[in-house]
Amino acid sequence: MALKLKFSIGASVFWPPKDRTLSSGYKPDITRKEIWESFSKVEGLEGVELYYPSDFDDPRKIKKILDSIGLEVCSVGAIIWAPAKYQNGSVTSLDKSIRRDAIEISKKAMDFASMMGASAFNFWPAQDGYDYYFQSDYQNKWDLLVDGVKEIASVNPEMPFGIEYKAKEPRTHQIISNASNLLLLAADTGLDNVGATMDFGHSIICGENPAAEVVQLINRNRLALLHNNDNYADWDHDMLPATAHFWENMEFFYWLKRLDYSGWINFDIFPVRFDAIKASTLTIKNIKRLIKFIEKIDVEGFNRKVDNNEVLETQEFLWGKLFDR
Amino acid sequence: MALKLKFSIGASVFWPPKDRTLSSGYKPDITRKEIWESFSKVEGLEGVELYYPSDFDDPRKIKKILDSIGLEVCSVGAIIWAPAKYQNGSVTSLDKSIRRDAIEISKKAMDFASMMGASAFNFWPAQDGYDYYFQSDYQNKWDLLVDGVKEIASVNPEMPFGIEYKAKEPRTHQIISNASNLLLLAADTGLDNVGATMDFGHSIICGENPAAEVVQLINRNRLALLHNNDNYADWDHDMLPATAHFWENMEFFYWLKRLDYSGWINFDIFPVRFDAIKASTLTIKNIKRLIKFIEKIDVEGFNRKVDNNEVLETQEFLWGKLFDR
Amino acid sequence: MALKLKFSIGASVFWPPKDRTLSSGYKPDITRKEIWESFSKVEGLEGVELYYPSDFDDPRKIKKILDSIGLEVCSVGAIIWAPAKYQNGSVTSLDKSIRRDAIEISKKAMDFASMMGASAFNFWPAQDGYDYYFQSDYQNKWDLLVDGVKEIASVNPEMPFGIEYKAKEPRTHQIISNASNLLLLAADTGLDNVGATMDFGHSIICGENPAAEVVQLINRNRLALLHNNDNYADWDHDMLPATAHFWENMEFFYWLKRLDYSGWINFDIFPVRFDAIKASTLTIKNIKRLIKFIEKIDVEGFNRKVDNNEVLETQEFLWGKLFDR
Amino acid sequence: MALKLKFSIGASVFWPPKDRTLSSGYKPDITRKEIWESFSKVEGLEGVELYYPSDFDDPRKIKKILDSIGLEVCSVGAIIWAPAKYQNGSVTSLDKSIRRDAIEISKKAMDFASMMGASAFNFWPAQDGYDYYFQSDYQNKWDLLVDGVKEIASVNPEMPFGIEYKAKEPRTHQIISNASNLLLLAADTGLDNVGATMDFGHSIICGENPAAEVVQLINRNRLALLHNNDNYADWDHDMLPATAHFWENMEFFYWLKRLDYSGWINFDIFPVRFDAIKASTLTIKNIKRLIKFIEKIDVEGFNRKVDNNEVLETQEFLWGKLFDR
Repeated sequence: MALKLKFSIGASVFWPPKDRTLSSGYKPDITRKEIWESFSKVEGLEGVELYYPSDFDDPRKIKKILDSIGLEVCSVGAIIWAPAKYQNGSVTSLDKSIRRDAIEISKKAMDFASMMGASAFNFWPAQDGYDYYFQSDYQNKWDLLVDGVKEIASVNPEMPFGIEYKAKEPRTHQIISNASNLLLLAADTGLDNVGATMDFGHSIICGENPAAEVVQLINRNRLALLHNNDNYADWDHDMLPATAHFWENMEFFYWLKRLDYSGWINFDIFPVRFDAIKASTLTIKNIKRLIKFIEKIDVEGFNRKVDNNEVLETQEFLWGKLFDR
Repeated sequence: MALKLKFSIGASVFWPPKDRTLSSGYKPDITRKEIWESFSKVEGLEGVELYYPSDFDDPRKIKKILDSIGLEVCSVGAIIWAPAKYQNGSVTSLDKSIRRDAIEISKKAMDFASMMGASAFNFWPAQDGYDYYFQSDYQNKWDLLVDGVKEIASVNPEMPFGIEYKAKEPRTHQIISNASNLLLLAADTGLDNVGATMDFGHSIICGENPAAEVVQLINRNRLALLHNNDNYADWDHDMLPATAHFWENMEFFYWLKRLDYSGWINFDIFPVRFDAIKASTLTIKNIKRLIKFIEKIDVEGFNRKVDNNEVLETQEFLWGKLFDR
Repeated sequence: MALKLKFSIGASVFWPPKDRTLSSGYKPDITRKEIWESFSKVEGLEGVELYYPSDFDDPRKIKKILDSIGLEVCSVGAIIWAPAKYQNGSVTSLDKSIRRDAIEISKKAMDFASMMGASAFNFWPAQDGYDYYFQSDYQNKWDLLVDGVKEIASVNPEMPFGIEYKAKEPRTHQIISNASNLLLLAADTGLDNVGATMDFGHSIICGENPAAEVVQLINRNRLALLHNNDNYADWDHDMLPATAHFWENMEFFYWLKRLDYSGWINFDIFPVRFDAIKASTLTIKNIKRLIKFIEKIDVEGFNRKVDNNEVLETQEFLWGKLFDR
Repeated sequence: MALKLKFSIGASVFWPPKDRTLSSGYKPDITRKEIWESFSKVEGLEGVELYYPSDFDDPRKIKKILDSIGLEVCSVGAIIWAPAKYQNGSVTSLDKSIRRDAIEISKKAMDFASMMGASAFNFWPAQDGYDYYFQSDYQNKWDLLVDGVKEIASVNPEMPFGIEYKAKEPRTHQIISNASNLLLLAADTGLDNVGATMDFGHSIICGENPAAEVVQLINRNRLALLHNNDNYADWDHDMLPATAHFWENMEFFYWLKRLDYSGWINFDIFPVRFDAIKASTLTIKNIKRLIKFIEKIDVEGFNRKVDNNEVLETQEFLWGKLFDR
């Protein structure tokens, strides 16, 4: 059976990249209209990841634009890491009114997600964590996060609610740092629709082997959404997929295939110093190449070697398929 | 209220250290008799961590020796990473007879733990994991581990069963790699006595902040045993405690105090190039110094600053207490 | 003999922190006038690190302001990582006119450094590096950097020219990544005044033990300037000094003392979520506490233990001095 | 022009792997005779790396054996990390007689290297470093190492003398930790034949991009010998080459090709849990596959894209060559 993945990106791919070194931006500003045009120029693109409120004037208007360029809505999220009021936390803020704002905006975005036919809601508690030692009542933050997620995810129990786990950035330590951590939190909410937005790059920076984790997430029915991008295991550079971690990506897609996973994969890349449309097009092209390769190796004999711990045999097989022709 | 910790070490502290570079050993061989004498010379020591079968001829004989030198049994474990037959796994071995051996020896050790009045059973699935990509059916290994733990831990539901999580060594990837991972596995067993042996050094190498994790383990009633030692976050060097991670240890003990934890702390150090008796004595002395310091800072006002995210205030407080006199 | 260090900060400490997650800033904007007032409010501050062109209208005017608030100029640098034209490199840009701009602006800043009586020129080739594999002619970039540094540093052979080495950010890989790398480049220039701006945090993120490196830099007469701040070894968080790496800072200052180092130490901190004036004041206060402690331990007997590899003795000594009272 | 590499392994590949967890060994003991037979069974093998004294009874006898199985001597080294007397250092030992032993045994091995027609002498100061902070006079250790290397390398100024740099293991910190560090030391000796044994895996664990470093070593004429193996950037696992770092190996061999490097590459692998003969055979086969691929991509057009920073174009090119057929 073929791996049925659909490909999307978000508008952030087209925004002028900014960082603390070059806060004025690596590229010129871009209008919302130009962003929609950019989406339409990415070859192979099937959907978009939307964020509330930045991508929304009017949901119907957006739906119309998307229809006109032939794109679906992969997922919707709420921006709860800006403006500055969220800097010490969104749903874990110790300031009750800020906490309430974060919950309400998320609930509204969750509504839009349903309305737009999104496959998942994406929840990234970016500012929820700490920077220094002796700065947190860890249990209290966990509990506030569980409660916040419960309230938001209950808006639509049919909508997969993906918490995007990430160990760091913008905080030095975020609360939900790895897949196991996320699964604990999901269990604590008592809700079936709470699961993970698994970002391949985030998985790498927290020291995971993404393949091993995605197996766990899928088998527990807690995988809401996939993101892909790459880095050097130190920081979330959001580079083009598989430009750093080749075998890790190959094993990751191999397991998606073995487990008959189907769903969206959103390419959350940060094309700092080159063209975003071309980068997105190349990304989709390369992942299709990788998947095509995976389709060919996914055979009974190879699976048995993997399961039986036959290192020399699996390596010989993979290298032969890759290089011999 | 004072932090009520008791201090122990295991016989491995006295064994001649060996590694792959100097496999003949950094120190001369030592007899079992000399090991018992060494235990008796460590100042401040209150207990020992025993391993079956290496430390056991006859439990009654050992009990007698321990009584004569005034030491209790902190914990008991089973050696399931040697001999060589366990190299591809103990309770997750794909070879059923090896798997059975690992389970039976562990059950026997669990019996000894009860018999000796140990506070916990320590379970370290050291060889249970993988080294290469495309070498494992991850789900199968997880399931075998859950089943194995269930069978062993059921021997005595009153005995805390601590799984010593560790991300790597001797495998490049071990199955139970961090605290959240461990908590998932504990939940999967459905047993209340399954929890963590939290080794401070292991927590550091998997990228955790030990303080944040120990809070989670204690509050979920899943902390069976503590180990302490230190390293440089790259590898399990088993150095003297807090010689590398100072603030991390301080915050760790601060939270043990705030949560009124009482129990054993076993110093699992590897004194490669210096005297093991002196190293153990110094370790206990230094941890007592740290605890004494913690006792003084644990006051209402400070706790509130911590909980309220007041970084400058907590740092000023800690540095003042430490340096001003 | 006492450690003679002088303390400075740069205006960037007061700028509203921005990052890619919250690019509008964590704090409100601040005027140049408010920045000068802020400098004057930091207790214990003796100097400032200036950058051209951001800090300069007119050097004489600045000198007058500094005199009025009683601050010296620690060092001067040129901003060659912004605007956007520098995004692919400053003196290593493949575009000759951009390269020329970077050199000329640096030479002008070098003149200001002399004019203002700065103790060193600070040169940070932030955008000089690469992000992806197969993206660079490594030798060519090295050679361009050597040539660029030669031209700029020759402006004033009496002025220490510190290259601020840093492994990453804003590039995933910068050319001059560690102290040894820097020393090779300094030798390649053939100039005596070329050396390092050693930033403690940068030293940590490239895996160095800062103490070992500063000994090498001082003994080779290649230390131009010190920066201090801290992080978790993963990224340049620019946290308050010694809030993460305690022993590493202690050993670092211990060696500065043993080698009778005297000079400026600039606190390059990034106070994202708290008050910058208070953070700077606390930083100076805490480093003075650490230095005062070092002054007391720097005794013949202790030095001998260090030199003779006496781990247990040095640890006993340090812990006793720190905790026993 | 084709990349002219010759392939070798050392006897350690066949020794029963031992580590501190399973110090009795992962495989049964093996006789010297069986080791020679094993060498003869590795397909594609052209040479051996020998160590004095473990591999030597009588050089003539060994030469005869090697001739009979058609293998050359790639390199010779001295074992100066065992026995236990070297645990605190070889040529940097503070004990003069141990230091002398290390120098004399190395000089003798250097003689054997000349006698056997080795292409290089390999020098690994494994125990020369430190484990704890406040344990070393860093300058003294550096100076002792420079002096020791000078004395040994002077035995034969025509013989490339490769210092195998490595950041850690068996010490937590070794003196010569990275390529730049090594180049500084080589310059300090004032000898032209002193250079690096560059081990790909060691380069990875110290955070280097091996391609960038090998360019520097070759262009400075300081590359004595290459080792290859792989790991996960945390520890020297000595895994099969390129099983973890795929692109890094590809770029590494690409630059060897561009710089017309010719020489030996020794596969210093540690086949813990599988057959060493098969592992060595597969290693050579896979590296030949990689080199064959490199031969095809090394074309003018691609080189220009690399040099010009054209990320999207080089990635498109590499992925196309690898996957499209």
